[in-house]
Formats: sequence, structure tokens, C-alpha cells
Amino acid sequence: MNDMTQTPEMLIAMLGARARKAAAILAQATDEQKAQALKLAAQALRDAAPAIAAANARDMENAAANGLSPAMLDRLRLDAGRIAATADGVEAVATLPNPLGAIIDSSERPNGLVLQRVRVPLGVIGIIYESRPNVTADAAALCLRAGNAVILRGGSEAVESNRAIHAAMLSGIVAAGLPADVVQIVPTTDRAAVGALLKASEFVDLIIPRGGKSLVARVQEEARVPVLAHLDGINHSYVHAAADPDMACALVVNAKLRRTGVCGATETVLIDRNFASAGRLVQALLDAKCAVRGDGDVQALDTRATPAADDDWDTEYLDAIVSVRMVDGPEDAIAHIAAHGSHHTDAIITEDAATAEQFLNAVDSAIVMWNASTQFADGGEFGLGAEIGISTGRLHARGPVALEGLTTYKWLVRGTGQTRP
Amino acid sequence: MNDMTQTPEMLIAMLGARARKAAAILAQATDEQKAQALKLAAQALRDAAPAIAAANARDMENAAANGLSPAMLDRLRLDAGRIAATADGVEAVATLPNPLGAIIDSSERPNGLVLQRVRVPLGVIGIIYESRPNVTADAAALCLRAGNAVILRGGSEAVESNRAIHAAMLSGIVAAGLPADVVQIVPTTDRAAVGALLKASEFVDLIIPRGGKSLVARVQEEARVPVLAHLDGINHSYVHAAADPDMACALVVNAKLRRTGVCGATETVLIDRNFASAGRLVQALLDAKCAVRGDGDVQALDTRATPAADDDWDTEYLDAIVSVRMVDGPEDAIAHIAAHGSHHTDAIITEDAATAEQFLNAVDSAIVMWNASTQFADGGEFGLGAEIGISTGRLHARGPVALEGLTTYKWLVRGTGQTRP
Repeated sequence: MNDMTQTPEMLIAMLGARARKAAAILAQATDEQKAQALKLAAQALRDAAPAIAAANARDMENAAANGLSPAMLDRLRLDAGRIAATADGVEAVATLPNPLGAIIDSSERPNGLVLQRVRVPLGVIGIIYESRPNVTADAAALCLRAGNAVILRGGSEAVESNRAIHAAMLSGIVAAGLPADVVQIVPTTDRAAVGALLKASEFVDLIIPRGGKSLVARVQEEARVPVLAHLDGINHSYVHAAADPDMACALVVNAKLRRTGVCGATETVLIDRNFASAGRLVQALLDAKCAVRGDGDVQALDTRATPAADDDWDTEYLDAIVSVRMVDGPEDAIAHIAAHGSHHTDAIITEDAATAEQFLNAVDSAIVMWNASTQFADGGEFGLGAEIGISTGRLHARGPVALEGLTTYKWLVRGTGQTRP
Repeated sequence: MNDMTQTPEMLIAMLGARARKAAAILAQATDEQKAQALKLAAQALRDAAPAIAAANARDMENAAANGLSPAMLDRLRLDAGRIAATADGVEAVATLPNPLGAIIDSSERPNGLVLQRVRVPLGVIGIIYESRPNVTADAAALCLRAGNAVILRGGSEAVESNRAIHAAMLSGIVAAGLPADVVQIVPTTDRAAVGALLKASEFVDLIIPRGGKSLVARVQEEARVPVLAHLDGINHSYVHAAADPDMACALVVNAKLRRTGVCGATETVLIDRNFASAGRLVQALLDAKCAVRGDGDVQALDTRATPAADDDWDTEYLDAIVSVRMVDGPEDAIAHIAAHGSHHTDAIITEDAATAEQFLNAVDSAIVMWNASTQFADGGEFGLGAEIGISTGRLHARGPVALEGLTTYKWLVRGTGQTRP
């Protein structure tokens, strides 16, 4: 390392200063230029597929030698199909509507001043992620399209793959006339560099962690820079007394089991004591090979159900396990969600519109659904084109966050010489 | 203190838990109820004016005995006129448009799911402020109207005044049927309680400091809860070559001198080397009794100008002092602002529309103005009705922050039984 990078803080300050400079240039680039950079980057990823695959093979070899779990090895693996999908994803971001320059609102004051709020880039974004190397391309594409410089810090197990993806993308970005520093990778696997990045509020406007709960928890704990993230997805599906039994069974089984490892999966089912088909619902979950942990009333419905412990109501299983509780009407369901939920995604299933609206209004979560599977909690399913993450925080952006969440606004005031009396 | 309040952390946890509970009730209250609560609170403030004045007299006596400066004593003082103005301010917040329930956007997906983003309260807000007791009423009114519970921590010198204002407002709030805990005061002047409040991210969603730079700096340094604030207002007025000389003199003198202590005051004037009336401009500032600290070229314009030191370009004087520099065109002005500004408010004065648009586009500040005095940087002047503060941060809300900045949104998804494939 040279003088500028003697400590993790100095390294991050150097990267941060470069990012700030690049962000100022990027903020003045046209949307066509940004879209073109992503199209060229996508093509460069396709052209570099053999080099990326070779780099990934080296990562896979090291990871296997280091005893990584099969699940982690699968997340790390890049084959031709995954590289092609990554390139397609970058190209898709180039075709999304331009999030910048839109006039949010405008007004004219009695003194003749004309005010506008216009969308501008956020600035510099730090992404901290784990083994999936495609995040390198996905996150860089979204940040760049929204006019932001990005500093990427991937997992040490994916270092070769990430560098190969980064190198390919850079060739496209530079060919479009944009500065290379709009997308930087932290050039060390030293964990102290993550700590320095999390505290670099002078250089970084937002940190987005992408990975498991322990990564997110560490980032939230250590960061001095604002963090956009969700720690848990303890999501509920509440089956109201007036739910259609067929719909309820279909929705609950899908919400829990379509993919058990996603953050939008339902983890707790609340069944209204006046719902007549509770037994059929619990049976449908058990028949679909889902373990059911329930209160006494639920266990009475099917002997295969086992007792729920106190902490089951606060557990994100991310597995084919569900906690099930009988509740005394909507207020009881809403109170359970307030006490045990994680403000991510919660749903009511009912044919009664008034009760549905009561639930939509009262449940304080980023996403509240009526007669839909909680597994729809996803930026792509919401029509946002792509998502950088889902936020359970309440400031700035909530729920699925895509291009708009990577922007801010400024006030423009146009006058004709007005002085303030 | 009882068992629940043995430590500052326990005290804040108790207040925070009460605030969360009150916020959930407030979120379900109608807008009429909230407006009514503020009208009743305003009337209660008027009715309690003698008691508030008596409490303030006790604060003033203690403050004088403790040797507070005349400026601080003036900020602390409440006379009949100020109490009436405070009550009027609370009533004015009751007449602002309801910031909640608005549908930000909506869409229907190909699978029939109907999505909406609707404005909802932020939750619980902490306000940390200094001597002006009217902040107790102003901040409480804005937070309540936006559906939020608030925890107030005023300065120890204003403790009696703040309690009297709080007690009066509560009587109105409770008379409207809202829970008393929607507006709480930290019941101790122990400074450790501030530290605990700043770290209470489980109970508080946003901290807003109101006061001088040292207060804001301490809050930004210590807080783990997100902070909405501005530390500095190092604002620039750039006089372009094509500025109208009369307008330039009037705007610069107003921007600097109308009130020197406000955060929107211009602190540095950048004069284009090709502006023909530079001498007249500097003379106008000096004639208006403003000290001018300039570079060599500026000193050459008027012998009363003194040399600027390096740190003058980074100084918020909040006084009748201005730093003045000659620049080589718009790029140079923009570069100076990028290097020395605080991203608060910056203005260009020119008759050339293309240069004005270049400046509006390139300057990365919360507010960028063309042919207007930077002293207009104020929520009231922007037509927002009232402001809780001005933010130079980039997330959530930027520039003057009023009711909308005290809200967030949630996603509502209405389906007809859709499962995710």
C-alpha cells in the first residue's frame, strides 16, 4: 500500500474523495450517456464471460478448500447462464424510466418567486454484500442509473469474481465517457475497511447492506452513515372470519411455502376464531410438508401440530416452519402484529371490505396487503423494474426501494430580483 | 424517581414506550380531531398566559442570577405579545392542509394487484432545543398535526416556561380526546437524558435539534437515531458578469444584512471578474456597515476591505461580516461553492438565463436560487405554512422541512386472491 492507504480510514477517504468527484461529473451527465454506459457494460460482461467464469472458478476452489457450506457455494457459483442473466439485468436497468430531473412539485409565491422541487442524485452510495457476485453488477447499475457514484465491498470469498465483473463493467462505463470512479471496489479484504466505510459520513451518503441477518445487524450497529435495510421479515397472514376458504388455503400455502428463504415469506398465520375452515387451513399447511407450531387451539385442530414456544412468535424461520395462532377478531390480529411483527409485510384475507380497510389502515408495516400473497413483496413484482433492497426503516424510502429511493431532491427558486422585507 | 426511571436510559424507555402507544392511537385519529386539539391547545395557551408569564419570570430570574448573556435572556423572555403569537402559531398549524392519507402514486399490475403508496405518520419524534420556549408549542403542534407523538427536551434555563406551555397545550389535547402522551416533556434537566434520547432508536424515529451550532454538532455526533438538521449555512451569492448592477447591489445587501443571524444569510459573495460594477457592489456592502474581507482584487476595489484569511471562506459569520472573492466565470464560482459551501442555500444573480440554469443544475445545495435573496430560505416564505427546521442532509427531506417531512408512506396492495407463481 502507498502512503494514502496506510490505514483503512485513509483508504476509504481516498476512495470517498474519488467517488465525490466522480459523482459531481455523473450528476451533469445526460440520461442517454448513463443508459449507454449500462448497455456497453452489459455487452462487456457478455464479452468477458470466459474471464469471469475463470475468476469464479478460482473463488469456488478457495471456498471449497475453506469448507464453505453447499448453500454458500451455490450462491457464489457463476455459470454461463448466471453471467448472461447478470448482463441482461444490467441492460434492463438501462431501459427503466429516468428517475432524475422530474419536478416533484412547483408553486409561485405572491411575491413572484417560482419554486420547484426537482429530483437529483443522492450522491455516493456504499454497498456491503456477501457471496452473490451478481450484486456487484446489479447494485452498480442501479446506483449509476440514478446518477450516484458507488463504493462496493463484497465478500472475501467472491473477491476474484467481483473484480472480474467490475473490470468488465468499467470498460463499458469508460467507453461511454463516464469517469471510472463512478463504480469503485474496496481493494482489500481487510474487515477493518468495512468499519471505516460505515463511518465515512463525509464521503458516503447511504449504506445498503445486501446479505444475511448477521451482516445487516453488524452494519446497523456500527454505521454512522444512514443505512437502508431490513433486519427481519416476520410477516403475518391474517385469515379473517369472512375469508373465502379456498382463497385462504391457496394464499397461506403460497405466502409461506413458495420460497421459504425470501424476506417476504409469511412466518406467522393468525386465524380468526370465527373462521369456519381453520382445520382445513392447518391441514393444507401440514400436507404441504410445512411444520406447524401452534397454540393449544391450533394443536387441537390437527395432531401433527406441535406447541409453539414464546419466541416462535418473534422468529423469522426462513424455512418450512410456520407459527399459527387463533385470534379474537381484527383488533387482536392487529395487536399481535404490532407486538411481534417487523414492519415488513403483513396481509389480511377476507371478503369483508370494511374489515380489510381497517387492517390496511391500522397495520404499521412497509407493505400491507389484502387478499394477496406476502411473497409479492418485491420491487420487480411492484413494477419498479428492479430493487436495491427492502427497507423497514421509516425515513426516506420504505418497502421495496428502486431507482427513486436512490435519489433526493433540491429546491430551485427563480426570481426577478426579490429581496426579503 | 421510581423504579422505572432509575437511569436515564430507563426514563427514556418509559417515555418512549408511552410515546409509541400514543402514536398508534394518534395514527387512527381523524384529521378533524387533530385540528380541534390544536385549536383547543391554542385557546388554552391564551387562557394560561398569566401562568406562563409567571413561570417565565421565574426562569428569567434564575437565568439572570446565573449570568446568561443579554441575547440569551432575550430569547428566553416571554411577554404577553410573544405568548399570543405562540398561541396564534399553534392555531395556524391547525389550518394547514392535512398531510396524511394522500395517495402518492398508484398502479395496477398485469396480475390485477392494485398498489398505492399513501402518506402516514412518521411515528415518534424527539426535539432537542435551547432557550426559546415557543419551540415547545411550535414543534408539538407540527408533530401532532402530522400524526406523530413527540418527546420534547428543552434547555434547563427554560424549564419552568416549557412546563407551563406544555401543561396548557395538554389540556387542549386531552379535551379533544387524544392521549396526553402524544406530547411529552423529558421530566429532568439531567444532561444524560439527552444522551439516552439520542440513542433510543427503538422508541424514536427521528431527532430534530433546534438551536445553535454546538447543540446541533453534539446531536449529530452522539445520535444513533436519524437526525434532521443543518450544521452550517455557509451560503453564497454569485454575481455573474451579466448581472443587473442595481439588482445585484440590492440582492447582495439584503442577502447579507437583512438579518445577519439567520441560517439563510449570505456569508460569501463571489463576484465575476467580468462584472463591471464590482466596486459599487463592495462599496454598497461597506456603506451598509458590513465588514468586507476580500482577496487582493477585492481590497483593490475599496481600501476599507481587509484581507481574507484561508478560513474566512469556510466561516459562517452570522454577523455583519462578509467574505468576497473575485471568480473567473460560472465554473469557478460553482467550484468554489462545491469546495467551501455547506449545501444549504446558494444564489446566482444574472440576466443570462442559460448561465442561471447551468448554476441551478450544477450547484449541489438544498436550495439554489436565481435572482433572489438567500434570506428567503425559510419554510414560511416557501409557502409551507411553518417549518420544523432546515435540512442539509440528503435523505428523506432536504431544505425547509414542514408537515410533509414529518410523514412517511406505506404500500397498500389490494388483490383478489393472487398467489405468486
